[in-house]
Amino acid sequence: MRAEIIAVGTELLLGQIVNSNAQFLSRQCAGIGVDVYFQTVVGDNAGRIRDALELAKSRADLIICTGGLGPTQDDLTKEVLAVYLTRKQHIQEEAMNKIRSLFEARGAEMVESNIKQAIVLEGSDPLPNETGLAVGVALTQNGTHYMLLPGPPKEMKPMFEKHGIPWIRKRMTDETPLYSRMLKFAGIGESNLEHALLDLIEGQQDPTIAPYAKEGEVTIRLTTRAASEQEAWAKIKPAQQEIEKRVGRHLYAEEDIPIEQAVFRILRSRERTLSAAESCTGGLFSDMFTDIPESSTVFKGSIVSYTNEVKHNVLKVPLELLEGEHAPGAVSEETAAAMAAGAMEATGSDYAAAITGVAGPGPSEGKPVGLVFLGIAERNKPAKVIRIQASGNRESIKWRAAKAAYYHLWLTLTEAPNP
Amino acid sequence: MRAEIIAVGTELLLGQIVNSNAQFLSRQCAGIGVDVYFQTVVGDNAGRIRDALELAKSRADLIICTGGLGPTQDDLTKEVLAVYLTRKQHIQEEAMNKIRSLFEARGAEMVESNIKQAIVLEGSDPLPNETGLAVGVALTQNGTHYMLLPGPPKEMKPMFEKHGIPWIRKRMTDETPLYSRMLKFAGIGESNLEHALLDLIEGQQDPTIAPYAKEGEVTIRLTTRAASEQEAWAKIKPAQQEIEKRVGRHLYAEEDIPIEQAVFRILRSRERTLSAAESCTGGLFSDMFTDIPESSTVFKGSIVSYTNEVKHNVLKVPLELLEGEHAPGAVSEETAAAMAAGAMEATGSDYAAAITGVAGPGPSEGKPVGLVFLGIAERNKPAKVIRIQASGNRESIKWRAAKAAYYHLWLTLTEAPNP
Repeated sequence: MRAEIIAVGTELLLGQIVNSNAQFLSRQCAGIGVDVYFQTVVGDNAGRIRDALELAKSRADLIICTGGLGPTQDDLTKEVLAVYLTRKQHIQEEAMNKIRSLFEARGAEMVESNIKQAIVLEGSDPLPNETGLAVGVALTQNGTHYMLLPGPPKEMKPMFEKHGIPWIRKRMTDETPLYSRMLKFAGIGESNLEHALLDLIEGQQDPTIAPYAKEGEVTIRLTTRAASEQEAWAKIKPAQQEIEKRVGRHLYAEEDIPIEQAVFRILRSRERTLSAAESCTGGLFSDMFTDIPESSTVFKGSIVSYTNEVKHNVLKVPLELLEGEHAPGAVSEETAAAMAAGAMEATGSDYAAAITGVAGPGPSEGKPVGLVFLGIAERNKPAKVIRIQASGNRESIKWRAAKAAYYHLWLTLTEAPNP
Repeated sequence: MRAEIIAVGTELLLGQIVNSNAQFLSRQCAGIGVDVYFQTVVGDNAGRIRDALELAKSRADLIICTGGLGPTQDDLTKEVLAVYLTRKQHIQEEAMNKIRSLFEARGAEMVESNIKQAIVLEGSDPLPNETGLAVGVALTQNGTHYMLLPGPPKEMKPMFEKHGIPWIRKRMTDETPLYSRMLKFAGIGESNLEHALLDLIEGQQDPTIAPYAKEGEVTIRLTTRAASEQEAWAKIKPAQQEIEKRVGRHLYAEEDIPIEQAVFRILRSRERTLSAAESCTGGLFSDMFTDIPESSTVFKGSIVSYTNEVKHNVLKVPLELLEGEHAPGAVSEETAAAMAAGAMEATGSDYAAAITGVAGPGPSEGKPVGLVFLGIAERNKPAKVIRIQASGNRESIKWRAAKAAYYHLWLTLTEAPNP
């Protein structure tokens, strides 16, 4: 199946936002064996959206549009497709009820334009929006499949994963299915991982071995076509075993979950709790963990200590570590250990992570940008401290430091030796 | 001038990388008054690159291609354009010398494929690559302008800014320059804002009025063409005044900055400090603030209190508010106020924001998902408490609650009345 992705939105053409939706959808399509040949971006203009649909129809079996399903005047995608395919539009009751009850709950008045978000095309399959209001649409006409998804990634992604992919899979019956397994790595950079696996990647045939990097995490995807799931895993298994032999101590999951989720699962299954003391990450470590539903069963809380005063008063870091000519300072091994112990004490948790470093843009205490100390504390054991040197800008350093803290927590929890 | 941006690269179609080049180029084009009507992504395939050029020629005056100028076999853009325009290719000496001397300096052997990077089209203007090897190309044929830029952003961006933009500007002599102003709003949804301005948006001529939404923030861009900056602002001013008359209490900046940055600037200019107590936002409020460079001059720290134990032990929230049959509970007006006061006390800050609510997925204390209380405390004054009902999934609720807290801090700081 050949697909084309059309992102609709003048804000994309003005460069106000980056087209991360096209990346997400392309990757998802690759994962199920749909070939994306073109990505197109078009503004909020009915004539040009129509032209883009027309062109895509001439070269794709599946056209996925994102954006333009909202309540405002320049949200046009549904109307344009309805006219293009000469299909009527009608209100989908389920979506409409959701909008109504939301406005009621807020005690706010629903404006007429909100009704637009509940409209679907005649004979289409509605795609429920579990994280927003605008309902999605999928339909087939004259052998071409059309799918309309909302623009906000937080609505589009779950809608596509939960409802879009199964809808597409059902229409791919004549193709040998594609199976893939994601292996997730932490504590190793993309180039180092690739270096360790270079001969495998270069000599790959079946399964294919594709590395992807996000900041602080690396993913390898093993993909094969097979008649059955069993056959697929039998083909994937030897390749995975070889990879594990080389870089197994960095492999934390066989599915696409972030490292903090792996840590969460272990802690929850053991009924153990976590807290944190954050300096340079400024709350990001805690924010990541609390994005996980039910994280409150594990996470006790954290102290974001952006001043020595807070490190001392709340985390009980001894003043002699922080102040004075010969003190190791806020960014030091000693302070990281004391912060972790302090977080555990203040919150009553079983484990604690502490992160102190220099996020930049300038150096601090004469220490270079990117220098970070991680403290990992466990009740009744001395805290471990790890020193890392992160690269990138302020946000990258925060991100990498937080991810590294999760990696070392995970190592501690799985009792693997520290590298 | 109408432009189309073509990004060449199979890695984009596989979703391995995001098309940040298209965003950068679109934004740059908007800044000089070039209208981008389409962005296209095409793989490393000669036939499809040619089709994309053909189509772009039919609808644009300027075609900007990125990617496919490198030394490898699948770098095809220059060859395809040369064949398409029937122009010869030749080696540009300056670029060739640079490649030669680089390999000499490295003591490495130059492989033949590297010569490709020094090739330009007959009669074209070479665009020097100051941060890499592949030379860029710009030329005009039959009234259409073509520009080929390298794919790596570190090479593409400086090449475009330094050589691409001046080349384009010289070809725009007959156009009146474009000026625009961004207005940023908080504490109001996109549909409500648009509703308040509907007649202005519908009746817009000059300047144009375009709303954009990101979660928890709304932007309006006013744009006009004018002979001078002075003339432009004179045209924009009455429209802006009318907007301010209607929704001025939500307008926090006249440039594209997030609300936390507006709060940061006020606090820093007054030499006042901030802290936070976060429950349902789990560190996100602090994370946002500490993404701002030099936020350490204002931010003292925060306590992420995910349990009643931490609320009581660290934030000194009285137990009678938290526990017992008739206690208002962790998600309540009283607790929000006590948390804000507790954060101010624990960190010694001048201001504090507290956020407590139900992020979901399930209700808590019998209170509905999305119910959030914000406490805004100021030294020597009673804390203000605001109740909001946020919608969306867990991450959206966290995001909206954090943005709402900044909005109410901003209102407090600017002494506007609370809505």
